[in-house]
Amino acid sequence: MTNKIKAYKKKFDYSYTSGVYATIELIKIRPEIVDAVYIHTAYRDNDELTALCEARSIPYVYSDKAFSIANQKENSYVLGVFHKYVSVLASDQPHIILVNPSDMGNLGTIIRTIAGLGIKNVGVIEPAADIWNPKTIRASMGALFHIRHESFNSFEAYSGQYPDHRIFLFMLGGTVLAEDCPPCRQFSLVFGNEATGLDERFMHVGQSVKIPQSSCVDSFNLAVAVGIGVYVFARKNRLV
Amino acid sequence: MTNKIKAYKKKFDYSYTSGVYATIELIKIRPEIVDAVYIHTAYRDNDELTALCEARSIPYVYSDKAFSIANQKENSYVLGVFHKYVSVLASDQPHIILVNPSDMGNLGTIIRTIAGLGIKNVGVIEPAADIWNPKTIRASMGALFHIRHESFNSFEAYSGQYPDHRIFLFMLGGTVLAEDCPPCRQFSLVFGNEATGLDERFMHVGQSVKIPQSSCVDSFNLAVAVGIGVYVFARKNRLV
Repeated sequence: MTNKIKAYKKKFDYSYTSGVYATIELIKIRPEIVDAVYIHTAYRDNDELTALCEARSIPYVYSDKAFSIANQKENSYVLGVFHKYVSVLASDQPHIILVNPSDMGNLGTIIRTIAGLGIKNVGVIEPAADIWNPKTIRASMGALFHIRHESFNSFEAYSGQYPDHRIFLFMLGGTVLAEDCPPCRQFSLVFGNEATGLDERFMHVGQSVKIPQSSCVDSFNLAVAVGIGVYVFARKNRLV
Repeated sequence: MTNKIKAYKKKFDYSYTSGVYATIELIKIRPEIVDAVYIHTAYRDNDELTALCEARSIPYVYSDKAFSIANQKENSYVLGVFHKYVSVLASDQPHIILVNPSDMGNLGTIIRTIAGLGIKNVGVIEPAADIWNPKTIRASMGALFHIRHESFNSFEAYSGQYPDHRIFLFMLGGTVLAEDCPPCRQFSLVFGNEATGLDERFMHVGQSVKIPQSSCVDSFNLAVAVGIGVYVFARKNRLV
């Protein structure tokens, strides 16, 4: 009735949610893509989960073996198997663009953060951490299923496809404070990767902005910088 | 000339910085506590580091064995060995209070964040992740050495010791928005742990505050919530 469970690989056309919370989000938001749910026999509070599956005709299986195979190092009692889907950004909504994010935990945390701040579109410039990896999905707490996401081979490929967005680039040498930017309906907030940020060549593609910072640190953690930057824009534009 | 290198344990009266950046921060900010620096023979850019050590009469040793022992799973080429020191909060400065933070990476990221936002005092309510663990220090990017920190057996022990701080509690059910709080010179921002936040009994110990949040997520990641909350207070009170 389902795919035989295997350790996740990026090339698969399906992936897993690991953990109760992310799996329930998956089932509630996108029931049509769920193939099956695996439940560990040691899991106790399964009434809500099995009722949800039954209401949506999603098969569920009690199996411990599935966890040792699919669930590398994760400590969870519930797995959802789902088919990946094609997702594109909405051209009339704000975007968050991540250039080469390399860490799945960070990427998931960022998705959770922006969904929590009312922004539902994230673009990822390759090469990048796999947005479908169970680790990313788990760090997002299932928020991945709430948002649209699209990957691009280059920043130019993104900006060519969505030319009407006003671009704000978060850089250590940004010329204005994020909080001093004017309100704006269709914005793109662009963040570089964990180690290098955005390099100088980005300076000319839009308005460079910064978050005020003391001299005690070199930079903020990427997920924290995204949290602060997106918070400022989300409040200014009444998105949350 | 130095302690024999051992895998770090909480009970030790010394600890390690792992990585070039954190070790250079240690040497620059607190040279008097550094016992020795270990440098992997594969490390290339060691001129700045050895010059720093020589200028402060800190012994440095080329040794690869130290890394396999002390540096569990970390991938670094530089280790600093230092003695822990007694640190207490400044009673006339703002405080960040973390109730039972459980993850060393989160704790370090939070220390980096608040130092970057101009706040130099963090209190930790036990039980909590070890602030001296090399993992915490590495996640802080050495910002630990810029701040004062103190641990307390209970929140009451903290508030009894620093009774003049105005207390703001970050809670999902907070009654006012963080951004609507009045400016205030001597504030304490209190955050709960990763899994449970602050429970209801905290409601009466100060002003409960919240960060606006969409219905797409249950909560923000702790380090992100601290980033946003501290940013709001730091800007309002012109700390950064």
